[in-house]
Amino acid sequence: MAESFPMNGGDGTYSYTKNSQYQKQATDFAKGTIQEAILDKLDLVSVSDTFRIVDFGCSVGPNTFITVQNIIQAVENKCSLQGLDPGNIDFQVFFNDHTANDFNTLFASFPPDRQYYAAAAPGSFHGRLFPRASIGLAYSSYALQWLSRVPEGVCDRKSAAWNEGRIHYSGSSGDVVRAYSDQFEKDMDVFMKARADEIVGGGLMFLIMPGIPDGVCHSQLLLGVLFNLLGSSLMDLATEGIIDKAEIDEFNLPIYAPSVGEMTKLIEKNGCFSIERIELTNPRSKVDEPIDVRSLIMHLRAGMEAVFTKHFGDGVVEKMFDKTLGKSEEFSNFLKSNYPNSGQLFVVLKRK
Amino acid sequence: MAESFPMNGGDGTYSYTKNSQYQKQATDFAKGTIQEAILDKLDLVSVSDTFRIVDFGCSVGPNTFITVQNIIQAVENKCSLQGLDPGNIDFQVFFNDHTANDFNTLFASFPPDRQYYAAAAPGSFHGRLFPRASIGLAYSSYALQWLSRVPEGVCDRKSAAWNEGRIHYSGSSGDVVRAYSDQFEKDMDVFMKARADEIVGGGLMFLIMPGIPDGVCHSQLLLGVLFNLLGSSLMDLATEGIIDKAEIDEFNLPIYAPSVGEMTKLIEKNGCFSIERIELTNPRSKVDEPIDVRSLIMHLRAGMEAVFTKHFGDGVVEKMFDKTLGKSEEFSNFLKSNYPNSGQLFVVLKRK
Repeated sequence: MAESFPMNGGDGTYSYTKNSQYQKQATDFAKGTIQEAILDKLDLVSVSDTFRIVDFGCSVGPNTFITVQNIIQAVENKCSLQGLDPGNIDFQVFFNDHTANDFNTLFASFPPDRQYYAAAAPGSFHGRLFPRASIGLAYSSYALQWLSRVPEGVCDRKSAAWNEGRIHYSGSSGDVVRAYSDQFEKDMDVFMKARADEIVGGGLMFLIMPGIPDGVCHSQLLLGVLFNLLGSSLMDLATEGIIDKAEIDEFNLPIYAPSVGEMTKLIEKNGCFSIERIELTNPRSKVDEPIDVRSLIMHLRAGMEAVFTKHFGDGVVEKMFDKTLGKSEEFSNFLKSNYPNSGQLFVVLKRK
Repeated sequence: MAESFPMNGGDGTYSYTKNSQYQKQATDFAKGTIQEAILDKLDLVSVSDTFRIVDFGCSVGPNTFITVQNIIQAVENKCSLQGLDPGNIDFQVFFNDHTANDFNTLFASFPPDRQYYAAAAPGSFHGRLFPRASIGLAYSSYALQWLSRVPEGVCDRKSAAWNEGRIHYSGSSGDVVRAYSDQFEKDMDVFMKARADEIVGGGLMFLIMPGIPDGVCHSQLLLGVLFNLLGSSLMDLATEGIIDKAEIDEFNLPIYAPSVGEMTKLIEKNGCFSIERIELTNPRSKVDEPIDVRSLIMHLRAGMEAVFTKHFGDGVVEKMFDKTLGKSEEFSNFLKSNYPNSGQLFVVLKRK
């Protein structure tokens, strides 16, 4: 059973719905590339009377609806160009996320004018979710970085991979990094096998997630810097006696950002998909305004509060985010002089 | 847009989850009949690599899971008997209910050992929900009695169908009854057309809902008696000055129980399904113990609180159910001497 830490539900101040503009930038950035890939690569053999699409890790919207609309338009264009009447195709879209995701909120925000049959498939994507060869196009954005569990050894003081006083592998020893990358490899293995069963021959899969340039150290990533900032806020709370340092030692964020080289190896190991495109991009490169650190921290909170709350409890998490917000100016200055690497891995795969 | 009044969510005292044993009796009663119909009537032409099943109006469980398991077992048995290996079939089950249904609770109670791919299709079944010819077997239990809207005229003091001082057609004039049956006819028309598009040739549809013996008056039905009891509790509140009588005049329960004759006519009018079986049964005839009136009222509350709350507000509904519970002894005595008709309509249809 994979561990599950849903995005914040509802539509309040700390909700994912209200704090997912960065993910939207990523979605916008990917829009053109997705349209292009569908036009060039989608095999129309995979399109029958019904074309089924899945968003793996859809969360609670609204980004998932924008992407789905974009995908359907591109498939319709492709069909028209090939002389097929897209009016003859029924589109069925499955929204997938963990069972604990707030599906009630997702359903309440379904676009009323949608041109597809909407369904949800709750459950971990680290396992089968659909009948074999039933999916024409799969999509996953900012979900695969979540590992199915905390890597082995990183919370165990007897292990070489013990990650003392830290909550993430960025800046940690090689043993810790290896424990994380091993877990990512296992998860990708399970994910790719399941998708290979579910996606029809000629069908496409788009994977979007945080990535790291080949050869760059994880602590130089924006994500790593942010996690270290959260970790240092927790260590402050330990110094103040509000929590025990041992509690921090027992906690590690199950999040991983792979490189292009790593990802390529894992896809080739599975062997069922051809890599049509793989690249590391920077979705913020097209955005003019500088990073708003307070907003960035609110985004982190919307997406990651649950994993902290489960371990530390509500009160501590409230204090941790307050402390982190208090450091936002200092952090802003740091970002101005040490602009860290920020990468988005974009992968287009085709089922052989 | 059909009106939506979901069953009470969660798992508290007044939840549907805790108050759906009567519906379970109905499910148990139908179990054997469903198995038999699948064995005799299901056309294996409708069974391919993937067999898709829908429960229209699934609510929040647990009855839906029991039924689905029963259906899958029967389909597997039928395949085995015909020399097909059921291990080669992927079962995908869609749980349908209004968008406002508490799907989060439903998903949290999915049986962990289920042998099928579970999905949800939120939305009104008075309209299309699935791609054409994609469903092998459809099932709906105690959902079709809900009309998509309050019948025309029954809340309008200028209409001949005005239902003054009553909340339901039981015991009302012919014009009121006709307004209800007209609305049911319109709803069934839309429902049957949508299902005819969605169900594959040779596929089956099971419909279970409250029914009335041909020629019997609606006020002689247990359901009618119960609704009159709720109505009289509301009238008591009006007499006490807690609500205005006009509020009662403006409220009508959008619930209808058809006869075998009526249902047969509507199915034949649609023309896309053959009637394999249609009958009025009494699921309580096999149950020894007498009706527990308090429990019956709790069931009504779990299933129908939302429709009252929307119109009268929380406070009034609380008082209405309290008053009704206060009348339960008197009502018990009435039931002992005037055992009203209680019927369950059971229909097996096959897509031509």
